[in-house]
Amino acid sequence: MTVLPERLSVTEETSTPKTSAPSAQHMIAFSPSGKRGHFAAGVSVLEAARRLGVDLDSVCGGRGICGRCRVALVEGADVKRDIVSAATHASPPGAVEERYARLRGAFGPGERLGCQALICGDLLVDVPPESQLHRQVVRKRAEAYPVKVDPVVRLYYVEVAPPDMADPASDFRRLAKALSEQWGLGESSARLPVLRGLQKILRDGQFAVTAAVRHGREIVALYPGLKERVCGLAFDIGSTTVAAHLCDLASGNVLASAGRMNPQIRLGEDLMSRVSYIMMNPGGDRELTAAVQDALAGLARETAAEAGVATQDIVEVTIAGNPIMHHLALGLDPSELGMAPFALTIDAGFDLPAAEIGLALAPGATAHALPCIGGHVGADAAAVVLCEGPYLSDELRLIVDVGTNAEIVLGNRERLLACSSPTGPAFEGAQISSGQRAAPGAIERLRIDRETLEPRFKVIGCDLWSDDPGFAASARGLSATGICGSGIIEAVAEMAIAGILRPDGIIDGELAARSPRIVADGRTFAYVISQGEPRIAITQGDIRAIQLAKAALYAGVKLLLERYGVDKVDRITLAGAFGSHIDPLYAMALGLIPDCALDKVASAGNAAGTGARIALLNAASRREIGEVVQRIEKVETAIEPRFQAHFVEAMAIPHASDAFPHLESRLGISFARAPSAEPRRRGGRRRG
Amino acid sequence: MTVLPERLSVTEETSTPKTSAPSAQHMIAFSPSGKRGHFAAGVSVLEAARRLGVDLDSVCGGRGICGRCRVALVEGADVKRDIVSAATHASPPGAVEERYARLRGAFGPGERLGCQALICGDLLVDVPPESQLHRQVVRKRAEAYPVKVDPVVRLYYVEVAPPDMADPASDFRRLAKALSEQWGLGESSARLPVLRGLQKILRDGQFAVTAAVRHGREIVALYPGLKERVCGLAFDIGSTTVAAHLCDLASGNVLASAGRMNPQIRLGEDLMSRVSYIMMNPGGDRELTAAVQDALAGLARETAAEAGVATQDIVEVTIAGNPIMHHLALGLDPSELGMAPFALTIDAGFDLPAAEIGLALAPGATAHALPCIGGHVGADAAAVVLCEGPYLSDELRLIVDVGTNAEIVLGNRERLLACSSPTGPAFEGAQISSGQRAAPGAIERLRIDRETLEPRFKVIGCDLWSDDPGFAASARGLSATGICGSGIIEAVAEMAIAGILRPDGIIDGELAARSPRIVADGRTFAYVISQGEPRIAITQGDIRAIQLAKAALYAGVKLLLERYGVDKVDRITLAGAFGSHIDPLYAMALGLIPDCALDKVASAGNAAGTGARIALLNAASRREIGEVVQRIEKVETAIEPRFQAHFVEAMAIPHASDAFPHLESRLGISFARAPSAEPRRRGGRRRG
Repeated sequence: MTVLPERLSVTEETSTPKTSAPSAQHMIAFSPSGKRGHFAAGVSVLEAARRLGVDLDSVCGGRGICGRCRVALVEGADVKRDIVSAATHASPPGAVEERYARLRGAFGPGERLGCQALICGDLLVDVPPESQLHRQVVRKRAEAYPVKVDPVVRLYYVEVAPPDMADPASDFRRLAKALSEQWGLGESSARLPVLRGLQKILRDGQFAVTAAVRHGREIVALYPGLKERVCGLAFDIGSTTVAAHLCDLASGNVLASAGRMNPQIRLGEDLMSRVSYIMMNPGGDRELTAAVQDALAGLARETAAEAGVATQDIVEVTIAGNPIMHHLALGLDPSELGMAPFALTIDAGFDLPAAEIGLALAPGATAHALPCIGGHVGADAAAVVLCEGPYLSDELRLIVDVGTNAEIVLGNRERLLACSSPTGPAFEGAQISSGQRAAPGAIERLRIDRETLEPRFKVIGCDLWSDDPGFAASARGLSATGICGSGIIEAVAEMAIAGILRPDGIIDGELAARSPRIVADGRTFAYVISQGEPRIAITQGDIRAIQLAKAALYAGVKLLLERYGVDKVDRITLAGAFGSHIDPLYAMALGLIPDCALDKVASAGNAAGTGARIALLNAASRREIGEVVQRIEKVETAIEPRFQAHFVEAMAIPHASDAFPHLESRLGISFARAPSAEPRRRGGRRRG
Repeated sequence: MTVLPERLSVTEETSTPKTSAPSAQHMIAFSPSGKRGHFAAGVSVLEAARRLGVDLDSVCGGRGICGRCRVALVEGADVKRDIVSAATHASPPGAVEERYARLRGAFGPGERLGCQALICGDLLVDVPPESQLHRQVVRKRAEAYPVKVDPVVRLYYVEVAPPDMADPASDFRRLAKALSEQWGLGESSARLPVLRGLQKILRDGQFAVTAAVRHGREIVALYPGLKERVCGLAFDIGSTTVAAHLCDLASGNVLASAGRMNPQIRLGEDLMSRVSYIMMNPGGDRELTAAVQDALAGLARETAAEAGVATQDIVEVTIAGNPIMHHLALGLDPSELGMAPFALTIDAGFDLPAAEIGLALAPGATAHALPCIGGHVGADAAAVVLCEGPYLSDELRLIVDVGTNAEIVLGNRERLLACSSPTGPAFEGAQISSGQRAAPGAIERLRIDRETLEPRFKVIGCDLWSDDPGFAASARGLSATGICGSGIIEAVAEMAIAGILRPDGIIDGELAARSPRIVADGRTFAYVISQGEPRIAITQGDIRAIQLAKAALYAGVKLLLERYGVDKVDRITLAGAFGSHIDPLYAMALGLIPDCALDKVASAGNAAGTGARIALLNAASRREIGEVVQRIEKVETAIEPRFQAHFVEAMAIPHASDAFPHLESRLGISFARAPSAEPRRRGGRRRG
């Protein structure tokens, strides 16, 4: 969390010739870094680490109070490793370490404070992960890249000279001097809200304070005495939900996460209806901005309370969101994004005082809005790109983040393309007659018997399939409340496979004679999954909504593939809540995504949220994504004639075995040739 | 107001060898700068000026719409000056200049737009003052230094590329690109409030806009189309009054000035009572801050209305004030300034968003708070130093700014000392029984007949002395309403000269037998100036108040003289309202200021306000005063034992002829030896 001054010269073994009296120098080796060097007796382990560039933390600057430089002196290292290490080769623990142990808990075997243990012989020093300054946030997925914790804000404990009438230097000047002298920082600055609390905090701490300093220059918060932890908040602002992750800026750990419905929904379900609201209602943009900013402020309070952290300890914020949410959250009128040529106010990532968007955090807390890729591909897509790192990949990657719009990114380290496709909310269970969000009670898996056309399904919150003997006894089983996005995909795909759907997407009414599941529904037909209360069925309108959504998604993908000049990709990543629940097999069967080896299709979870978290925890990542975004070729679906063509073509319901012959066995069932299999073949979708 | 790109190379005569075909080059000479050089035919006069570094303005960048590069082509210059100049040596006026003349008024003889007149022969070009970029603000006083108009904010007219769906660069990116390509600016930034108006302004101006850019980097305001003038506000925040000067940032002219009582007065008459108020009332600092910020906002609206300028056109603010006013105006709790060791929150000059102190100006308007010298010598004293420039002087200068405290600066280019002395408000007419501010009706001049002890006086608003025949007929004469600071000084000095005061400052009651002007007033006596309604008299309490004030002032001056090791100075400057009204002769007679040749004593008027104006108009002056302030030796009167000694010593009422023998004749009267002259001599003040 803190850095050490860099002005002292390094006495590294490789760069320094052996001195004339090597006997006076002791060999110190650090693990796990493997760095080693010779130092004179009396040098502290912390100082040796600093000179060698070993990643050893310190907030208090070697005063023995923060304990962040705890190390273990390893006994009995192999002599062949040129190290004879023993606790006797370091100065014995003194009063400072005894006080620390009394106040903060005893030391383990060999454990010492690096700032207090002085070298008096060869030593092998183990730096435990919790004492490393730049920890790696280990990702769970193999294809994800590790991220170093290296935040823009670090803590510096300083002892400031008290005021002196004979030298009227202001409190701020003496604080800046202490930061310069004790930590090697350059010129410090602070914004007015930070200055406003300065005098009281200095006196509360009896002139010993911890400063949270941004980019080594700007003091964004000040705390009396030793402060060991400050936090950051990563926001992912979706059209439907707003999510926040509160992170410890030193460890990178997520302390609390929370989400809530985007309160703008009452002013317009989807993005375009919100832009319309603004165009129809003067001041409507301020109303929408107030709604989302209230939600952000509420999430800040909620996550802070959950983690037991004061909101004043939150010093940095990152914001990802689609272009319209990005603009509304920042109080930028998004009207121009509602019509061609879809001009953004600003596309580059930029910093603003968090208070300017209504967040009451640390007095100098700064929010960093991630860059937008284009008028339709926002900071959420940039966050997904940052999370997934296709720009570091040799493989050709397709990344699809399905929300109310689908953000699609295609490329590798050579070239990157991106577009946004208006899928609408159908994949999220909205605008579907029995649709609901993925919550307990929702049907999430569905299979249809190819002969009887009877369904079996699974409900969120119950491990049993509906045809398992115990299902009826389960309260859940009796009360399926609707069908969520992944359930709808499987339902439509299974209906197609079972021959209930014709290639043009019409529910085949002739089948009503064969199965009571096919029933008339006005002038069309519906497939009834559950006769319970409520009745759950897939109507012709639902099929149309899914057809439109999947056609939009696929047309966008197709456009990028064409532009790139390929027809298949090496790896597909499905991001977002929808991508987390969907079975890739069915996504492929229904033609949502192009052909790809199934083991190369994976969900990335909330990649936009993770990207916002990476930007929060790693300073360099902000520059990195800023540069990458400039390299991305933006494809505007709205003006691409080919998009319409692809869209119309992709409206068809493919017969899975036509499209992906290898899927038949993968689906774990043999594809039944439904009675209407022959005519279906005719209209089958041709794939390029 | 605008600068030209600096990336093109200069073809100055002195640095460029004559080319092989000098006949193709024409000699262009500019007056009044005297700069000259050779240019090829077809180069514009503006371009030639730019290459030679001639100070020729342009806001529109040579598009012929702003008219700021108007020049006169001089006819018939002397051939010996190597110039054959004639209107025929420039391209004839074209459509652009005809349009300009039609819209903006006809040209005078020889007048052209420098950007439109192309060179086709030798030319002598006169640049009138209104076309010069860096005009000098001419001061009225000989000892004052000229100040160049070179503000931190300049205007740049640009034509921005409209948005293009095929290249989704944001509006801000295209604006920044236009500023870079059309004006050579580097990377541009803008704060969120500026970004919020960006899209509408660009479209209102059909993508032709004028950007107000701070330090060549930060866009602080944006206006549709061509904008020719933006303004700045200089604030001088005194304990008693708050003053504002609205200036045209291009010409430096003051467009409007206004002042109002500091509304904090209702919460405490003097500074210390306001700090006490804060200490006694939790939240009292916010109340005092709100009061002064309201006054600043009101003055901004008032001066803008008077000048016919929109508040949105005010892009920059400077703030001078004593330390407590400086802190309260910025919302910094001044409690620490109310007790030793008088620690300032911040002493360096610094920038803050104007909105953070409640000023609704241009969206990105910035306020610059001038630096404070010490806990008792504030940004007002820094502004006085900037105005008077003692740090540029060879003479040893004493500058005294009397307000509720007296700020005293002593020094020259070698060394500078400063202190503040608690004079209290007596010099301003406050805490004086018949005292009032310097306003119509106030007695401002007073003489006492050495024999009869009868007074004669002058009242503000009437040119006659009270013993002039016409005075009684004047309505003013009949209604003297009180006595102001300068009147009190003269009254006390005249009372001393006339022998009414004993050296210890006691009004000599024995004189009541000689003159009806001396009357009993409780256990002491008073001198009655006017028996009208109201009765105007100088009481013993008034004498004590003046004694305390003048002793404090002189003790501060004396302390600095001692510290410097001198006992006289070359020049004395009296700043502030009090300094403007007081007769230096009487100030010297009463011992307010040390001995000095009378023609070297002058009033500087509102030097703090002028200093704030200089900081507003000249970017370099901010760095300059920041550096000077660091060099000033701050003398803290509160901990100087010598201050108390000087103070006690200076309490005595000097007999003018004792103190300054040469004053007797200068006062234009022979010093009467009053009956009590002998004992007065005994207690006479000894001066070091």
